[in-house]
Amino acid sequence: MKKNVYQFSEGNAEMKPLLGGKGANLAEMVKLGLPVPEGFTITTEACMTYLTQDHYLTEDLKSQILTALKHMESSSGKKFDDTEKPLLVSVRSGSMYSMPGMMDTILNLGLNDKTVESLAEQTQNERFAYDCYRRLLQMFGEVVFGIESQRFEQYLTHVKEKNNYASDNELTAEDLKEIVKVFKEIYLESVKKEFPQGPIDQLFMAVEAVFRSWNNHRAQVYRRLHGIADDLGTAVNIQTMVFGNSGQKSGTGVAFTRSPATGDKHIFGEYLINAQGEDVVAGIRTPEPIDTLAEKMPKAYEEFIKIADLLENHYQDMQDIEFTIEEERLFVLQTRSGKRTAAAAFKIAYDLKEEGVISKEQALMHLKPEMIDQLLHPVFSKEVAKTAQEVARGLPASPGAATGRVVFDAGQAKKYVEDGEEVILVRRETSPEDVEGMSVSNAIVTSCGGMTSHAAVVARGMGICCVVACANLTINEAARSIIFDGGVIEEGDFISVDGSNGIVFLGKLEMEKTEESSVFKTIMSWADEVADLNVRVNAETPKDLTTAFAFGAQGVGLTRTEHMFFEGKRLTEMRRLILAGDSAQRKAPLKKLLEIQIEDFTNIFNITQEKAIVIRLLDPPLHEFLPHGAEEIRQLAKELELTEDYLEKRVHSLMETNPMLGHRGCRLGVTFPEIYEMQVEAIIRSACGLVKKGINVAPEIMIPLVGVKKELTILKELLIQVADKIIAEENITLDYTIGTMIEIPRACFIADQLAEEAEFFSFGTNDLTQLTYGYSRDDAGKFITTYQQKKLLPADPFQKLDVEGVGELMRIAVERGRQVKPDLKIGVCGEVGGDPSSIAFFQQLGLNYVSCSPYRVPIARLAVAQAAIMK
Amino acid sequence: MKKNVYQFSEGNAEMKPLLGGKGANLAEMVKLGLPVPEGFTITTEACMTYLTQDHYLTEDLKSQILTALKHMESSSGKKFDDTEKPLLVSVRSGSMYSMPGMMDTILNLGLNDKTVESLAEQTQNERFAYDCYRRLLQMFGEVVFGIESQRFEQYLTHVKEKNNYASDNELTAEDLKEIVKVFKEIYLESVKKEFPQGPIDQLFMAVEAVFRSWNNHRAQVYRRLHGIADDLGTAVNIQTMVFGNSGQKSGTGVAFTRSPATGDKHIFGEYLINAQGEDVVAGIRTPEPIDTLAEKMPKAYEEFIKIADLLENHYQDMQDIEFTIEEERLFVLQTRSGKRTAAAAFKIAYDLKEEGVISKEQALMHLKPEMIDQLLHPVFSKEVAKTAQEVARGLPASPGAATGRVVFDAGQAKKYVEDGEEVILVRRETSPEDVEGMSVSNAIVTSCGGMTSHAAVVARGMGICCVVACANLTINEAARSIIFDGGVIEEGDFISVDGSNGIVFLGKLEMEKTEESSVFKTIMSWADEVADLNVRVNAETPKDLTTAFAFGAQGVGLTRTEHMFFEGKRLTEMRRLILAGDSAQRKAPLKKLLEIQIEDFTNIFNITQEKAIVIRLLDPPLHEFLPHGAEEIRQLAKELELTEDYLEKRVHSLMETNPMLGHRGCRLGVTFPEIYEMQVEAIIRSACGLVKKGINVAPEIMIPLVGVKKELTILKELLIQVADKIIAEENITLDYTIGTMIEIPRACFIADQLAEEAEFFSFGTNDLTQLTYGYSRDDAGKFITTYQQKKLLPADPFQKLDVEGVGELMRIAVERGRQVKPDLKIGVCGEVGGDPSSIAFFQQLGLNYVSCSPYRVPIARLAVAQAAIMK
Repeated sequence: MKKNVYQFSEGNAEMKPLLGGKGANLAEMVKLGLPVPEGFTITTEACMTYLTQDHYLTEDLKSQILTALKHMESSSGKKFDDTEKPLLVSVRSGSMYSMPGMMDTILNLGLNDKTVESLAEQTQNERFAYDCYRRLLQMFGEVVFGIESQRFEQYLTHVKEKNNYASDNELTAEDLKEIVKVFKEIYLESVKKEFPQGPIDQLFMAVEAVFRSWNNHRAQVYRRLHGIADDLGTAVNIQTMVFGNSGQKSGTGVAFTRSPATGDKHIFGEYLINAQGEDVVAGIRTPEPIDTLAEKMPKAYEEFIKIADLLENHYQDMQDIEFTIEEERLFVLQTRSGKRTAAAAFKIAYDLKEEGVISKEQALMHLKPEMIDQLLHPVFSKEVAKTAQEVARGLPASPGAATGRVVFDAGQAKKYVEDGEEVILVRRETSPEDVEGMSVSNAIVTSCGGMTSHAAVVARGMGICCVVACANLTINEAARSIIFDGGVIEEGDFISVDGSNGIVFLGKLEMEKTEESSVFKTIMSWADEVADLNVRVNAETPKDLTTAFAFGAQGVGLTRTEHMFFEGKRLTEMRRLILAGDSAQRKAPLKKLLEIQIEDFTNIFNITQEKAIVIRLLDPPLHEFLPHGAEEIRQLAKELELTEDYLEKRVHSLMETNPMLGHRGCRLGVTFPEIYEMQVEAIIRSACGLVKKGINVAPEIMIPLVGVKKELTILKELLIQVADKIIAEENITLDYTIGTMIEIPRACFIADQLAEEAEFFSFGTNDLTQLTYGYSRDDAGKFITTYQQKKLLPADPFQKLDVEGVGELMRIAVERGRQVKPDLKIGVCGEVGGDPSSIAFFQQLGLNYVSCSPYRVPIARLAVAQAAIMK
Repeated sequence: MKKNVYQFSEGNAEMKPLLGGKGANLAEMVKLGLPVPEGFTITTEACMTYLTQDHYLTEDLKSQILTALKHMESSSGKKFDDTEKPLLVSVRSGSMYSMPGMMDTILNLGLNDKTVESLAEQTQNERFAYDCYRRLLQMFGEVVFGIESQRFEQYLTHVKEKNNYASDNELTAEDLKEIVKVFKEIYLESVKKEFPQGPIDQLFMAVEAVFRSWNNHRAQVYRRLHGIADDLGTAVNIQTMVFGNSGQKSGTGVAFTRSPATGDKHIFGEYLINAQGEDVVAGIRTPEPIDTLAEKMPKAYEEFIKIADLLENHYQDMQDIEFTIEEERLFVLQTRSGKRTAAAAFKIAYDLKEEGVISKEQALMHLKPEMIDQLLHPVFSKEVAKTAQEVARGLPASPGAATGRVVFDAGQAKKYVEDGEEVILVRRETSPEDVEGMSVSNAIVTSCGGMTSHAAVVARGMGICCVVACANLTINEAARSIIFDGGVIEEGDFISVDGSNGIVFLGKLEMEKTEESSVFKTIMSWADEVADLNVRVNAETPKDLTTAFAFGAQGVGLTRTEHMFFEGKRLTEMRRLILAGDSAQRKAPLKKLLEIQIEDFTNIFNITQEKAIVIRLLDPPLHEFLPHGAEEIRQLAKELELTEDYLEKRVHSLMETNPMLGHRGCRLGVTFPEIYEMQVEAIIRSACGLVKKGINVAPEIMIPLVGVKKELTILKELLIQVADKIIAEENITLDYTIGTMIEIPRACFIADQLAEEAEFFSFGTNDLTQLTYGYSRDDAGKFITTYQQKKLLPADPFQKLDVEGVGELMRIAVERGRQVKPDLKIGVCGEVGGDPSSIAFFQQLGLNYVSCSPYRVPIARLAVAQAAIMK
């Protein structure tokens, strides 16, 4: 028979999966000799067996519970249903991960019409005894029978109003007796059942109810939001009651060993005299700050401080401790690592390390990389957000907060900005033509698209806050208005965007800015010390590069040259090039683009200096550069001096049914080599310029979308020819390398062949994921949300690497590539390059670096450190 | 030192890779004791070393050649440059695979101003000697120095005209001496060099020229067309000359041991008296049929017949033999397997088996599966095609020949057909809306798209001939005309389409029909006997199913249910369904579609009876069913009683950027389960209908596009529920299975998980290839042709399975799937299912069946037999 019940004395802190966090920590505290009320824990396994197989309490389980109960009775000297010393217990849920308030608790179990009298007699406190009983009736009714709490509360309120009481404390024993009577009637009325008088019946019913509460709606939602698996189950803790509500020498409270808001080292908490646990949480009475306890009950206070210190040292982390004082005797009911703000987390980890409690590595493991977002992006203060009017909720695509006037297109955006206004670009979805408008906006809001839609990717790349998929907004770009559930927003109206939480507010909300603290900087330097993987940035604009280096990027993992072609005169020249009828007509735009690109790369190299930099040659399908719609075609035709008819046909001929799978990347390089030649010329000429000034730039030129070896062979030969000719002309030494992006499944299988040509690999996990799943990033939004809701996908694979599929392809590629070149430098430059859980996998794979958007650089730096520690 | 030169007596027929076909067969004939003129072969390896490394004849190679030459001199008793018995040799190319006429040959090498006199004296035939010399000058000039043949021919013609000669035979010795003089002047004039008088110089120069001829343009083109690798190289055969031009008792000829046109068993060939080899080919004189030789030179004829029999028996195949008779002495100069028509190939293989020369398996291996196309599709006779006016050449997408009137859309197509006319649908490209029009057309022609474009796939599926990618056609669908290089074609004009060769002709060409012969049927029955893999068909229309079963399909590997929704009232209901705003509005169209589908499946099952049949649930993106363009939207809005505005918005909201990677297949099944429920209901109800009549239909229901296990789990559960409810209602036994299509790379990696749910797998190699390469079938035409030309791809991976990438994914899927279910039934239903070279790989993988379009079924039947034999 499986052991389903553990005495507290049989467990320890390591047993969280089986005993839940609460049960394991109670056991640990018993081991430490702390004053913990006697009890036992029913395992999470028992819960899952109940939920998935039995759906009732088996005789075996019942007998194990009763054995544990006997033990409790004999050592406490109290007994269930005893007329002299009745045993009362609490029944509490507690799963592996803390899910505060999500599951159910019942206090004072064991009371009935008989034992309530015994308790009154024993404590000489009738009021207290009936207060316990009415609480049990209320909690048991809600939890076991699902009676609405309203029904009990209404009557309680009625009694208080009738007697003009300000608080529950004023209720008399008589009042409470009456209340108990009425509460029992509520049972009969609501569920046609009597309140069960047998304590054992109460106990079994309570255990079942707690088991079932694992699957209640709010618990399910919480788990989905926090990525907690559904098959963990909850443990049930049965513990002897101690009574904070047994008089003025009793009380109950919660305290943190350090400030959860700032991390400062002082006890932070509150308590209530003459109250039971839930009264503090419920907020009916205002609790008092913990330090006032020093005066009221100095002995208990002193003991608590000692215990708090001991627990923090024992767990090597800031603790959140629940305690109860019964007649001046202190009991600890729970301890756990306390939730805290990002700022507090960093301060606490830093302090604990400085205090010598934990090592540098432990300090780093204390932190969640994603928290850094909160530290670095400006935010709306909670107060402000609470009272503001929400317009929409969407996906939090790019963190931060911003306010500005609504605009609907790039032209208006620029016009407003030129007039000194701040703007937020709102569109159904964005396209490359909007990039210029996006770059001048404070935030982007779209009604369509997902976390990796164009708007989301570009916004994150630019470090602009962004909310996408605001499905309830009807954006009428033509009418220049937005219809939302509560009204209409016109162009020029102010809105505020919270990109970290995916909320759009009406009006201009106030913001708080954040600065990198010295604590933060120190911790990040520890991270760099322990890391194996380097962290690079995906960036091409001077602004992004500067930001990323300030954030500690160790190089550039991806410079997307196409982003440089999307604005102003560059776009015109690019269009002229694409639309040219023959190579003679191509010459002029190529020459102009060459000049522009030389300027671009010179600017970039001036920032990156001698840092590693991967430059990807042109990647997107040609038609991305083309005009859409009749009006734009008309204008462009005029500009390029072409007939509209010709232009329309040419644009049409460049259109593709599935551009993502079309004529792009190295395929363009092969069929249309002039562009790559021009780009490499620009890279090499710019680099030569810096080398002459004594700065040894070493560009890593990357050929995208390779699927067959010969693509790489042909293009490498071509590009080397171009590059070496210039280097010879310039008569200098320039170290450049040519590598390839691994983003086509087939490339993974032929990685050995590619490694014969490539001097480095960089995984383009975005495309690789698209092709491995057959999901278009532009379109997957239509079903990926449903998929996540229905749990077909554990996470969005564009956000978190899919280890089973994409990961396996990567493993094959790394193995085969390194078979040919054992020292082959391999990085990742897709979205997941900045995702901590993906980074752990990249560490296992033995990659050399990850690369991500500027604002994710610090997150990745912490994540690579953690990955190195856990390896 | 490497052995680069082999005496004929040192080789044999197995050494083709090293000695080339001609060299190896000459060696084999020497071994057989046949009268072969003395000689030796320089290896293909020597050629490749010359071409890729040395670019000159090394001293080592020269010395090996000279040693072989010495041997030849001593055993023939003739010597180079000898004044009494001058040795003359032929220098001929000969690669591993026959490339007739593609590379160069020089005869009579060794002649010069001195030896020509000796030859005249020795043979007492001055005319003969100078005829040989002028031939050498001409061939050597062309081959070694690249002098245009025109220059020599012009003068020859001039002499003949001056003297009123009808043929070369009338040239006198004096004429020929003058010709030789003038030919030598041509050398000086053209290349400023004398004709080299030294026979050794001649020989070395000739060998180099033959080596180089491996890379001449026409040889390269031939290799590309016939899939011959570029790194094989050609051998060079040096052989003592025998003279068919040494008088009236001499001659030269070519003969087949059986008819290459029909396969009938009789010697088939022709010869010329007093001529050298190239005269027969050149067609200047009309050769005489071989049987007349029996009278003219009975001894030589008899000997030849004996040798022909011997060679055919020895090689166990019909032979193509070159011979020369010198003064009534017969010499065999070459033998090889003769090229033949498809009909002849089948007849010969059948006869050889029946004659006991070869086994059943050998007979099957004699045949090229692709040949069957020629046997089964009607064709234009060669005579007709030669004189017809070509309008365009494109890709031969679907074989066969057809004529008809040009139409530009489905509506016109139907109108013409209703009037009793035959039509050919001509479009820029086709879309699902054209399917009805395609089905009534005799042929399809498009100006865009590739071998797997919509037009190509559907046409092959329907067995309709089709030419795609006719780039030179400007199809103006609005103006209803086609502009081609030679003029304009209007709607209603006749054109003729040769789908086997990818040619479009003007006018209505006459056709020849083909019937399955009894020989063909017998051979196919042999194929079925030896095969391991079954052959199924991809089909859903009664016509296609009937055709396929007549062609021997053993089941249905893919029934595409979406094809059933594209016509007439079905499309309207499907549109009503998709455009419905809520589930209430969906009910009516679902009910109608259910009725239609029950009818569909009943019709199908009535044909397939108890044969295995895989039915794929709806696969394409929803918007494929939607109207395109304002006019169609207007009509549909009227039909469905919706506002145009609403309809346009709804259509727009269903549009996807990359539909191939979008909301389709099982993703629709998950988010929109009503359609799959309806389809399964229809399948099961129809099947029940047949079961009640005693026909045990056993549908295999296939869920497409699965990438994560839970898609399959959820849908399987749902569909089983629907199916089992109906089966219980009907109170019968029905064996149905539920399986999945493996077409997403990720599915291959999780095949073990999928095998836990799936009762069968079917590889969708089209999608799998798309995703493995990242090539959209709709768009890849833009670069795939360039890729094949530049040899980046050995073949179109949609036509021939890519073993390195797609194949490796398939191997992973088979291994993992069978790990869980050792007997898992696995098939292939993509385009490559009918491709012989891909089938060889599927045999290795251990698949259970392949499935292909109806007209490829016999090809696949032969290919699976060959794969089983070669395993």
